[in-house]
Amino acid sequence: MNKKNESVRETAARIKGDSFTMAALSGEARNKALADIRLALRQGRDRILAANQADMEAAAAQKLPEPIIKRLKFDDQKIDDVCAGIESLIGLPDPLFQVLLRRELDQGLVLTKLTCPIGVIGVIFESRPDALVQIASLCLKSGNCAILKGGSEAAGTNQVLFDIIHAAGTAAGVPGGFLTLLHSREDVGQLLKCHESIDLLIPRGSNAFVRHIMDNSEIPVMGHADGVCHTYVDAGAELEKAVPVVLDAKTQYVAACNATETLLVHKDAAPAFLPALAKGAAERSVALRGCPRTGALISCEAATEADWDTEYLDYILSVKVVDSLDEAVAHINRHGSHHTDCILTEDDAAAERFLLLVDSAGVYQNCSTRFADGFRYGLGAEVGISTGKLHARGPVGLEGLVTYKYQLRGCGQIVAD
Amino acid sequence: MNKKNESVRETAARIKGDSFTMAALSGEARNKALADIRLALRQGRDRILAANQADMEAAAAQKLPEPIIKRLKFDDQKIDDVCAGIESLIGLPDPLFQVLLRRELDQGLVLTKLTCPIGVIGVIFESRPDALVQIASLCLKSGNCAILKGGSEAAGTNQVLFDIIHAAGTAAGVPGGFLTLLHSREDVGQLLKCHESIDLLIPRGSNAFVRHIMDNSEIPVMGHADGVCHTYVDAGAELEKAVPVVLDAKTQYVAACNATETLLVHKDAAPAFLPALAKGAAERSVALRGCPRTGALISCEAATEADWDTEYLDYILSVKVVDSLDEAVAHINRHGSHHTDCILTEDDAAAERFLLLVDSAGVYQNCSTRFADGFRYGLGAEVGISTGKLHARGPVGLEGLVTYKYQLRGCGQIVAD
Repeated sequence: MNKKNESVRETAARIKGDSFTMAALSGEARNKALADIRLALRQGRDRILAANQADMEAAAAQKLPEPIIKRLKFDDQKIDDVCAGIESLIGLPDPLFQVLLRRELDQGLVLTKLTCPIGVIGVIFESRPDALVQIASLCLKSGNCAILKGGSEAAGTNQVLFDIIHAAGTAAGVPGGFLTLLHSREDVGQLLKCHESIDLLIPRGSNAFVRHIMDNSEIPVMGHADGVCHTYVDAGAELEKAVPVVLDAKTQYVAACNATETLLVHKDAAPAFLPALAKGAAERSVALRGCPRTGALISCEAATEADWDTEYLDYILSVKVVDSLDEAVAHINRHGSHHTDCILTEDDAAAERFLLLVDSAGVYQNCSTRFADGFRYGLGAEVGISTGKLHARGPVGLEGLVTYKYQLRGCGQIVAD
Repeated sequence: MNKKNESVRETAARIKGDSFTMAALSGEARNKALADIRLALRQGRDRILAANQADMEAAAAQKLPEPIIKRLKFDDQKIDDVCAGIESLIGLPDPLFQVLLRRELDQGLVLTKLTCPIGVIGVIFESRPDALVQIASLCLKSGNCAILKGGSEAAGTNQVLFDIIHAAGTAAGVPGGFLTLLHSREDVGQLLKCHESIDLLIPRGSNAFVRHIMDNSEIPVMGHADGVCHTYVDAGAELEKAVPVVLDAKTQYVAACNATETLLVHKDAAPAFLPALAKGAAERSVALRGCPRTGALISCEAATEADWDTEYLDYILSVKVVDSLDEAVAHINRHGSHHTDCILTEDDAAAERFLLLVDSAGVYQNCSTRFADGFRYGLGAEVGISTGKLHARGPVGLEGLVTYKYQLRGCGQIVAD
């Protein structure tokens, strides 16, 4: 929360100052603060539920879409879930002060490569209030200061969660700048200009929004804009396995970034596979948009060039018949978003080639693209999924929130010797 | 080298295509190519020396500054050095196909986190021709395609080195796009716009040049603009050690990014230390620019506010007296470039506090800032030094040239189950 009369730039500079103190807190101190926050959230249950009730009523009055209202809901179960999340986070090894390398360069001159926090991280996230608790606790565990902006629909719930977490954290001895809640889009606009104080931005939300952030800030951005994921049905695919996997990848949660948007089918598999797929797709109300060769085998709308680059986030699947695995790989590397892509095949040599050549954070054989998720990967909570290749790729958990420094301890060594 | 009538964008797209093939080359194939390149460089010795002789003569005729001519020189010894460098690179473990994590998520559903190349890397470097060989071989070892632009003074030498390396590499079976040499500044300008094909830029050179690259491309940049390094003489410093370390950090090679530019002195150490420093500085022709409290103790020019943010790369040192270690830390974190900063003290508690709180890639106790170098760190050759905190920090060797992907192998698993 900005202090009175403080600009976002001043706020960010103040937080930057606190970030150095954060970097020196022991793992015990950070875990103690997490434990106190967990307890405070339990004790604040009634306040949280009341605030969420008000947000839900306002959302209903504004006739917001059902999925948004569903994400907004923060009930007893959700409070228990986030508290359990904090509990398990406390149990994880400290990501800081880990010695990655230790080497004596010369007599009495010892180099240590040591993990440390990134510093100040700005996270802009969607309406789910549990995201606030997860991100705040991941950043605290990793010694980073977090500046958050949540969805406006959840403003009341977020404010109460923030108040509880901030009070408990500072009472436990963590510097006040460890957590900040911004309130307006204008604040976010100002935040993007604070590259001197903010080390990393993690935007979560719509494609257009993430791209806007990437295009309007000099601060490094971790995350993904598009999620154009592919499933490729190889000549060696087993059709009884393939149809359920494709339908799951498309329909299990269409609004997710790891849902499959384009289906590629080897020409030898197409005659048997596509009719079976079309049947399953019809049962789940999935509209198919096919290339001409697809249209020759099943009834579907004709796909345009734009379809190959489109993240539908809806019950729509584009379908293309390809001549070879290499054509599928080339299509994916050209049109995909380097998020998650899958080959369905019993031919392990073909699968290995696909897994090597496809340039994506997740490359799968014989399973749904919907598995791309930090929790499913067993990484614990995630702050987001990165389609960039630098620093962290795929689901980003604690490990992606730390960097390292080289410490060199000597006793007067000079280079001229 | 661009093919005839090919735009830089087309070149970059072609190289991107080759980068996927590169990612699939075995470690043996990459090492074999490196061995062949090493042999070809030895066999091409006369061509290389002749080309360098011509570059040297042209540089002398143009009356280029002595340090540039010195860096340009590529003699028998340099050829032996780069060949020895390739030899040691061959001996290093393969940075690719390393399993960072392996986990069975469900019966028959196995997650593997595997290292892989970043893809296509653009490196723009200064006049030293040995940089071309080092960067080309580091990128080949790590399975990346490299697009290089060297200093124009070394154009002839670089062209011969490129021709030899490219011919030997492709003859060994590496795709032609593994190495490309650009010839003009216009090409570099075009390169900055190829964010669809290029994954990373590593600019090496002047501050203004690096900043120009950072400001004019959407491609991630790894490197450093400024190198405003500090040495802080603590109250607990031993003065006999401190003077030689400061003089080495300043003068051992003034044009280096890791040379100390600003000296901070604790007020309790200043009365004894500064006169001793002034004597040594005078002997080495170092001009001192001091704050008022410095000026009260020794004879020096008065520093202005701008001095605290200036990388001199010259025999000039700014000097400031501070009241406390924390003031020194705050000064460094505000005015420094997060490169390398050192505390001189026998008080280990003070040193630990400094090493924790200073937010730089290198944080030192009791030694010269000039140690910040991949070779001195024992990392092997480096492609550059990063002052960013994401991906790689400090000297960047092979490890900084790889990323990872998550491979997931199943047998029909869907998320809905």
